[in-house]
Amino acid sequence: MDTPLITLTTDFGAKDPFVGIMKGVILGIEPRVRIVDLTHEIAPQNVTEAALALGTSYRYFPPWTIHLAVVDPMVGSARRPLLAVTDQHYFLAPDNGLLSLVFEREESVHVRHVTAEHYFLQPMSATFHARDLFAPVAGWLARGIDISVFGEEVENYVRLDLPHPRRIGKEILEGRVISIDRFGNATTNITWSDLEPFLAGRAEKDCLVVLKGQQIAGLSRFYAEREEGALGAVLGSAGYLEIFVYRGNAAERWGIRPGDEVAVLLSEK
Amino acid sequence: MDTPLITLTTDFGAKDPFVGIMKGVILGIEPRVRIVDLTHEIAPQNVTEAALALGTSYRYFPPWTIHLAVVDPMVGSARRPLLAVTDQHYFLAPDNGLLSLVFEREESVHVRHVTAEHYFLQPMSATFHARDLFAPVAGWLARGIDISVFGEEVENYVRLDLPHPRRIGKEILEGRVISIDRFGNATTNITWSDLEPFLAGRAEKDCLVVLKGQQIAGLSRFYAEREEGALGAVLGSAGYLEIFVYRGNAAERWGIRPGDEVAVLLSEK
Amino acid sequence: MDTPLITLTTDFGAKDPFVGIMKGVILGIEPRVRIVDLTHEIAPQNVTEAALALGTSYRYFPPWTIHLAVVDPMVGSARRPLLAVTDQHYFLAPDNGLLSLVFEREESVHVRHVTAEHYFLQPMSATFHARDLFAPVAGWLARGIDISVFGEEVENYVRLDLPHPRRIGKEILEGRVISIDRFGNATTNITWSDLEPFLAGRAEKDCLVVLKGQQIAGLSRFYAEREEGALGAVLGSAGYLEIFVYRGNAAERWGIRPGDEVAVLLSEK
Repeated sequence: MDTPLITLTTDFGAKDPFVGIMKGVILGIEPRVRIVDLTHEIAPQNVTEAALALGTSYRYFPPWTIHLAVVDPMVGSARRPLLAVTDQHYFLAPDNGLLSLVFEREESVHVRHVTAEHYFLQPMSATFHARDLFAPVAGWLARGIDISVFGEEVENYVRLDLPHPRRIGKEILEGRVISIDRFGNATTNITWSDLEPFLAGRAEKDCLVVLKGQQIAGLSRFYAEREEGALGAVLGSAGYLEIFVYRGNAAERWGIRPGDEVAVLLSEK
Repeated sequence: MDTPLITLTTDFGAKDPFVGIMKGVILGIEPRVRIVDLTHEIAPQNVTEAALALGTSYRYFPPWTIHLAVVDPMVGSARRPLLAVTDQHYFLAPDNGLLSLVFEREESVHVRHVTAEHYFLQPMSATFHARDLFAPVAGWLARGIDISVFGEEVENYVRLDLPHPRRIGKEILEGRVISIDRFGNATTNITWSDLEPFLAGRAEKDCLVVLKGQQIAGLSRFYAEREEGALGAVLGSAGYLEIFVYRGNAAERWGIRPGDEVAVLLSEK
Repeated sequence: MDTPLITLTTDFGAKDPFVGIMKGVILGIEPRVRIVDLTHEIAPQNVTEAALALGTSYRYFPPWTIHLAVVDPMVGSARRPLLAVTDQHYFLAPDNGLLSLVFEREESVHVRHVTAEHYFLQPMSATFHARDLFAPVAGWLARGIDISVFGEEVENYVRLDLPHPRRIGKEILEGRVISIDRFGNATTNITWSDLEPFLAGRAEKDCLVVLKGQQIAGLSRFYAEREEGALGAVLGSAGYLEIFVYRGNAAERWGIRPGDEVAVLLSEK
């Protein structure tokens, strides 16, 4: 790691200096490290949202990036700090399910319970482990300290029950909205690996997407393929079915919120 | 370029991990690059706002900075990705007018249509070219790849019709508000090169600025020259006439919005 | 300084390119510098808020970090730009009290009036000294220019009267809320050095915290020690007494705002 790289994902926001302080701690340990903010606008204490943001992003970073993610309602309690290692990436996060999508997507994951207190800031607070525990461990990891010294391997770590779409007979694929982006586009939990067997050879145009009582005929390839203001569906850039309004805000226009049901139907030939 | 520098300007916001992902892609190609966020809070799909933000900022960056700007409603369609080169800077943006202010201000600009697909991420999405096309091209450019390999020169690129002030006889200079900053200050499209010939030797105090039915007598040199709460006008730091309320929010107080008319009148001697 | 480090604290927000421009100026002078954003979301022109954000954060940065902070309502007037040096850190800020908490916490501080105009951008605006004066001086400082060349030492710099808690007899310690964080936690101005002599050997459980007519029995060690939705008090990570609602937003739930009174009472044994 000539230029070690750390990403940060938190619910700390931009108003308070929490994230800047974490960076100060990291750079005090390893000044060569590059730090990239993934997002700090996770809704306060929403572990699922953080799991999705991190789980759909980490593969775009170079091998051996250290992904540090802290959404941590149980900070200070007995919940464990984890270090997870796949065959290409490191992850540091509290043991509350934040790494669930990583666990789901990666074949090989080794998880350690971080207990090596001499790498933590002292005195350690009970309310800001991102600063006192996760940031310094990320810094030492970036300096090349071997993962085995941070703690023992564990297996019984928390996995969230992330929502997956389900088939209802041959005709219906039912999913949910999982997030709304800045443009008002609604990302669903339906991926191409759900759609492909469902369509069973039919074209992407030969389905009907139903949401909030609205019917969308077929998938578009890109936003501008729809008319201005029209509701459309597209296989989005993270691989999920996405609902949009071209040059509009679908979520505001149709009152779409995370958790809303989305159905894909086979259209009659 | 020992330490290549890339700036980013988008309408992606801070909530979603889009910008972080772009940085991951860039750093995977050229780990030495330094990345500076210009802004990611351009109003969704507002190309003009992005053109002004980038066009008034790029000159403060060192020579051979790569300015990557993506506000891209037509992503996935036939709109072209452009690489523009002036005698000091590189620019990457969709061909939708985003570089209009650069084209206006620079005497020498060479523009290429980026077509060299082997530099793009594969498979390439149709909805996130910032990640799949612009970020990797910026990374390769930062590594020193010659501009000629990215595509052929083109001339018929899009230029926005940016609003310019107009003279009405000798007595009136009429412009418009083009943006509101965080302090509620209203930036107009009137620059010193518009004002100087209009004033024709009169002092900056000898004019009247009229906006929203309010009259401001003369220009201030800085904000604190006005009384607290009083409306003032100043030649702002980007070279544009700017309306402010000292220790207040002019836009909120007087309901000023982009597009509002502003007139400068010669005051009677 | 092999890898010089600069932190930025401003009220410039994320919408306008002001902060990006400052970074361009700095990197044009010293390309090796690392820049960390502390926060740019200080409420417009709120010098006290900036003094607290910077004053509770700078110690987490490595020795000889340059802390550049600009909340500057008097920009362009006769207010002086300052360079303060402690035995471990540099600070650049306008002379308006922004460094008050640094002055309070550091035993040895030397303050200079920055007057060396040949280090400033020319022509210098009267409204954006962050770009034209503070950023370039930070860049030259990072390059290793000796502090003595920037200007003469001064002593009569501005110090804000930061609010401190007061004892009312032996039974009451009265303080105030000084800020609300993103989670709705209310930070007070009561520190452990106020509490320790007040408790005089009693346990942290043996006190009563009163705020907005609500009584909180004893201090918690961490948030999750309280039941969901319950109001609690904790000695926060910056060393201040903090009021919270576990998995809730204390400020919204109880209408807490900066300036609100908080009392700590000794509970009957």
